[in-house]
Amino acid sequence: MSEFDLIARYFVRPAHPKSRAMLGIGDDCALLLQQEGMQTAISSDMLVEDRHFFAGADAYKLGHKSLAVNLSDLAAMGAEPVAFTLALSLPNAEEQWLAEFSAGLFALADEHNCELIGGDTTKGPLNICITIFGQTPIGTALRRDTAQVGDDIWVSGTLGEARLALGAIRKEYELNAKALNAAAVRLHTPQPRVALGLALRGVAHAALDLSDGLIGDLGHILKKSGVGASLNVDALPAGAMLQKQPTETRRRFTLAGGDDYELCFTAPVSRRDAVLGAALAADTPVTRVGTIEAAPGTRLLDSDGKALDLQLASFDHFA
Amino acid sequence: MSEFDLIARYFVRPAHPKSRAMLGIGDDCALLLQQEGMQTAISSDMLVEDRHFFAGADAYKLGHKSLAVNLSDLAAMGAEPVAFTLALSLPNAEEQWLAEFSAGLFALADEHNCELIGGDTTKGPLNICITIFGQTPIGTALRRDTAQVGDDIWVSGTLGEARLALGAIRKEYELNAKALNAAAVRLHTPQPRVALGLALRGVAHAALDLSDGLIGDLGHILKKSGVGASLNVDALPAGAMLQKQPTETRRRFTLAGGDDYELCFTAPVSRRDAVLGAALAADTPVTRVGTIEAAPGTRLLDSDGKALDLQLASFDHFA
Repeated sequence: MSEFDLIARYFVRPAHPKSRAMLGIGDDCALLLQQEGMQTAISSDMLVEDRHFFAGADAYKLGHKSLAVNLSDLAAMGAEPVAFTLALSLPNAEEQWLAEFSAGLFALADEHNCELIGGDTTKGPLNICITIFGQTPIGTALRRDTAQVGDDIWVSGTLGEARLALGAIRKEYELNAKALNAAAVRLHTPQPRVALGLALRGVAHAALDLSDGLIGDLGHILKKSGVGASLNVDALPAGAMLQKQPTETRRRFTLAGGDDYELCFTAPVSRRDAVLGAALAADTPVTRVGTIEAAPGTRLLDSDGKALDLQLASFDHFA
Repeated sequence: MSEFDLIARYFVRPAHPKSRAMLGIGDDCALLLQQEGMQTAISSDMLVEDRHFFAGADAYKLGHKSLAVNLSDLAAMGAEPVAFTLALSLPNAEEQWLAEFSAGLFALADEHNCELIGGDTTKGPLNICITIFGQTPIGTALRRDTAQVGDDIWVSGTLGEARLALGAIRKEYELNAKALNAAAVRLHTPQPRVALGLALRGVAHAALDLSDGLIGDLGHILKKSGVGASLNVDALPAGAMLQKQPTETRRRFTLAGGDDYELCFTAPVSRRDAVLGAALAADTPVTRVGTIEAAPGTRLLDSDGKALDLQLASFDHFA
């Protein structure tokens, strides 16, 4: 199978019924026309074997996750998905792998009306690089540098279960099969919170998505906004399987687990009802977990408001 | 050095004086606003060690080439460079490598007023994935599917010297140091024909950039346009060092060398003066090398118009 056959067979699809691309796969560039009054949100994520996923990972789920982590970046900006490019380095052109990978990729892409418009295919160590394009009305994007003192801090869904699954797969501890399977869904097939991101436009002050763990990721909002925070650690929503773990594990994994792909956002106290309305409209649970404060740094408190001293590190590829 | 230090030190720069990004590096997404009447041209290229470049390749030149191959895709669409994202997988965070790579990247980026607006950094086998954004007035992009029977076929610059250098480096044959150095410039630091691409808007019918070799790349224009071609093989412009090689080598490398990053385009016979004017305005030589014909396939002719029977293959990553 040649490079061009591979692209034609697994990545070129019939004309998209709602295509917003003026020219898609097969030319030197794709052409995209921005709708009037809109700005384009752009994000790139690169997934590397043995780093972001295990060698031999299920190809369907890998296709899903590769796009999901990018959709999650759009969600964090309150941007509506439009299109994406896929650059793929493959050790060899294995037909079954390609069929499964592309099926997982396109199932999620179709769910979000997000069209593949171009990319690159090459031989090499397995590496998946997606660049995604979304749109927001000009001035409505949810940024990191706009948190304000007094804002509530919220997170969507539950945290820490992707980390719980990862630890069990790495044999750090044992989980029974039922618990592992439930937690592994969060690790392998995260659901990007696109609907919530859209519903939070005009409601949230600042937002980002949680990929490296809440404590580190929230730190980006704090630094860019020039503020600090206190977090009620015991209010952090843990998944059902993580709730059964010891308190220390629950605290550590919800605070610094990584791979959550939930949204963390801040909103004024006066907009609590609006936040809950957005969550309802997006059918996505949200939990209030802390407060933006003027004093720099993050203060971790237990359910009684007492300071917790936890040793935590956010994920860093080069630390 | 942490991942965030690495990005801050080598890839975040002072605010761009002519920035067209509304939000750059450091948020979940970058934000780009399209100018009125413009469409966005988008291309992704992935460069893999031992595939697109040798292990231990000069980092400055690699930074140049990584962006050059993407700029070349914009040139082939007649698009003006605007911005790019960079996703980088690195075995380790070597400061000298990063300093040189980013210097080579930004030197070329600045030459083309093309701003880095986001990306990703991860640990893994060396892999460089750039997604580039350019703009053209709506309806003016140079496509592959618009060649017409009777069009002249043109190429810019000279062909085959990148392949000449590659063969010498691979010890397929010997070249003296002067010849190798001259040819290697074409292999390691290709100059994207952006100015020519812009000047050919409204003049050329179809265009693409030459990365896998003329014979294969021209085939994309022919297939998409539903036409064929005859090529005067001995009219193909060879670089000074390649001109000194045996006829068979010259023919083979100009036709199917790869890594040329010149433009191949078609234009009506009536626009020959306009093509030459565009070449003059862009300070880029062009050569007329063939004709678009109705009969499918590519007919290779020598300087006397006699059919040549050459065994050639275009580069294919999975062939």
